[in-house]
Amino acid sequence: MKTYREAISSAAYRMRGHLPESIRILSDALDALETDPLPDQYGTGSVIENFQARISNDLGKEQSVFFPSGTMAQQIALRIWCDEMQLMRLAYHPLCHLEIHEQDGLKELHHIETVLLGEADRLFTMADLKTVGNVACVLFELPQREIGGQLPAWDDLVEMVSYCASRGFHTHLDGARLLECLPFYEKTAAEVCALFDSVYLSFYKSLGGVTGAMLSGTAAFMEKAKIWKRRHGRDLYHLYPYVLTAGYAYDLRKDNMSGYWSHAKAYCRQLNRIKGFRTVPDVPVCNMFHLHMEHSLEKVEAALVNVMETHDVSLLGGLSVRDGKTVSEIWMGDSCMLVPEELLDTALEMLARELG
Amino acid sequence: MKTYREAISSAAYRMRGHLPESIRILSDALDALETDPLPDQYGTGSVIENFQARISNDLGKEQSVFFPSGTMAQQIALRIWCDEMQLMRLAYHPLCHLEIHEQDGLKELHHIETVLLGEADRLFTMADLKTVGNVACVLFELPQREIGGQLPAWDDLVEMVSYCASRGFHTHLDGARLLECLPFYEKTAAEVCALFDSVYLSFYKSLGGVTGAMLSGTAAFMEKAKIWKRRHGRDLYHLYPYVLTAGYAYDLRKDNMSGYWSHAKAYCRQLNRIKGFRTVPDVPVCNMFHLHMEHSLEKVEAALVNVMETHDVSLLGGLSVRDGKTVSEIWMGDSCMLVPEELLDTALEMLARELG
Repeated sequence: MKTYREAISSAAYRMRGHLPESIRILSDALDALETDPLPDQYGTGSVIENFQARISNDLGKEQSVFFPSGTMAQQIALRIWCDEMQLMRLAYHPLCHLEIHEQDGLKELHHIETVLLGEADRLFTMADLKTVGNVACVLFELPQREIGGQLPAWDDLVEMVSYCASRGFHTHLDGARLLECLPFYEKTAAEVCALFDSVYLSFYKSLGGVTGAMLSGTAAFMEKAKIWKRRHGRDLYHLYPYVLTAGYAYDLRKDNMSGYWSHAKAYCRQLNRIKGFRTVPDVPVCNMFHLHMEHSLEKVEAALVNVMETHDVSLLGGLSVRDGKTVSEIWMGDSCMLVPEELLDTALEMLARELG
Repeated sequence: MKTYREAISSAAYRMRGHLPESIRILSDALDALETDPLPDQYGTGSVIENFQARISNDLGKEQSVFFPSGTMAQQIALRIWCDEMQLMRLAYHPLCHLEIHEQDGLKELHHIETVLLGEADRLFTMADLKTVGNVACVLFELPQREIGGQLPAWDDLVEMVSYCASRGFHTHLDGARLLECLPFYEKTAAEVCALFDSVYLSFYKSLGGVTGAMLSGTAAFMEKAKIWKRRHGRDLYHLYPYVLTAGYAYDLRKDNMSGYWSHAKAYCRQLNRIKGFRTVPDVPVCNMFHLHMEHSLEKVEAALVNVMETHDVSLLGGLSVRDGKTVSEIWMGDSCMLVPEELLDTALEMLARELG
């Protein structure tokens, strides 16, 4: 019998993400070009500068710099705000990417102290912000990935950002999934970004690029970011393989987020009908959500493998255990569009039966 | 009239480096594959692991990790040696890449003190090493790029490395241009690397890859390097665009260094015949050298532009001024092989006349 992971990778249909990634995106991106640009060199050249200018325009920021990774971009942004305030202290959500996924780079490399806002299982609020003391910067993550991609209401967001401004705190947006929020807020990217002093955007996640991120802000801020980029060895000789594929993926999917979100809402309704299943949030506010299941990981895995063997469709993503529940993070992308409705209904019925 | 830079980029022939870089290396590298590997993920997957294993084998080291840049790889290597010795102090040449090209990342990020060995315009020697006091690590750069790619004699190198071992200093090789040294030493890469505790190799420079570097050493050392890679935000989601093109370029050019070196020696003999020209070193020990000219930069530029307009051949690389002399760094690659001998002779005669 196949392992869960093997079964997923060979399933004909999948209710998570895009089609399996292929190295052929490199030639697809080249084929989509009208003319071949010259390679960039250490961050200069039309291929990178034109893309940076385009994203600056879309985000309504003065300048942007393309980074090989969001980890790089964000550590640098936060360090600049701390240096500017001469205060090595900032605040973010307890499950912020920098807190749990970066081997403590912010603390080890930059000696920045972090204040955790609110509780791990919910969004932080004005009440949490008011307890924070003095910080150089507050990081907002929209949507808050680790709790199923939740979003504060627009008015609450505006109120919190205004409060930060009144206290002299800078605000940085972890907008790895910024475009995914726009349909819920009914705002443009520039309208959301206008709230924040600096913004980071990722080109993989729902956009499906290869790797890479943009950091955007004022010209003065970005000049500092460029020095830090060099200092961290992040100013790579050529970035064009990432830049070209990021541009290709951005064109291909930036306007798809509303469709992905609709699919997420419909799928959550179906999943929530299964006994012992609960999505977080109940109704998704973007194309991602978490599914909490009152069954053991082994039982869920076995049931999903059986469903895949019968119906050739992968229903969930990777599984983990949290607080005694089996949890899966699910995000809707191109592949979900291809799953026939009837097949999905039948497969979900079988899953419900298998889990009894 | 064209600027010097414009003239170089449009010249039909050039006596420096490879043919102009093209983004089409991405599709060339894909076309050279027998089967498509799956994309790597955060440093795992056959596409990256197989290449790492292959380079470990060629360098005779236990393990290797592919990094997006040499700056990343080397800062991490040096930090690990300093931590292991509990001594934040190391020694290298005054024109070491870390000292002059990295915005002081080593000092700013890692708080490592550096001791400069010897004088900027020559290789360091045993006598310099003996003055060094206590350090965690000594960095050797083979060849020493900023002084025209000079190399110590093999026996001197072995003696210096043995001295470091006797003092308990770790040794790290900046082998950005390691393969370029092998014909002079008449050694394999593994024989050179056996002298050093850790080694860095670049895949652009004479290999002509897109971007990327390998760091190699013992398994224990590389495990630490992997943690630092994540911590620095250097553990990119996908590295396959760099890995695939690095492998493609390595296969294409790793055995060409002897031919490039022969061309460098022949070209130096010709250049040294021109009045006011002196190559450093006099006879190159690898495919690179510097040319020092007793003429103003403006005069040299104008003469070179005239030569290009008449003979369509670019004779030197970028120009800078050092100690009152005009200096050009030249390295031999694929493009030099294509310049007809007669054309080169005629163009050099014209250059000599133009400079009077």
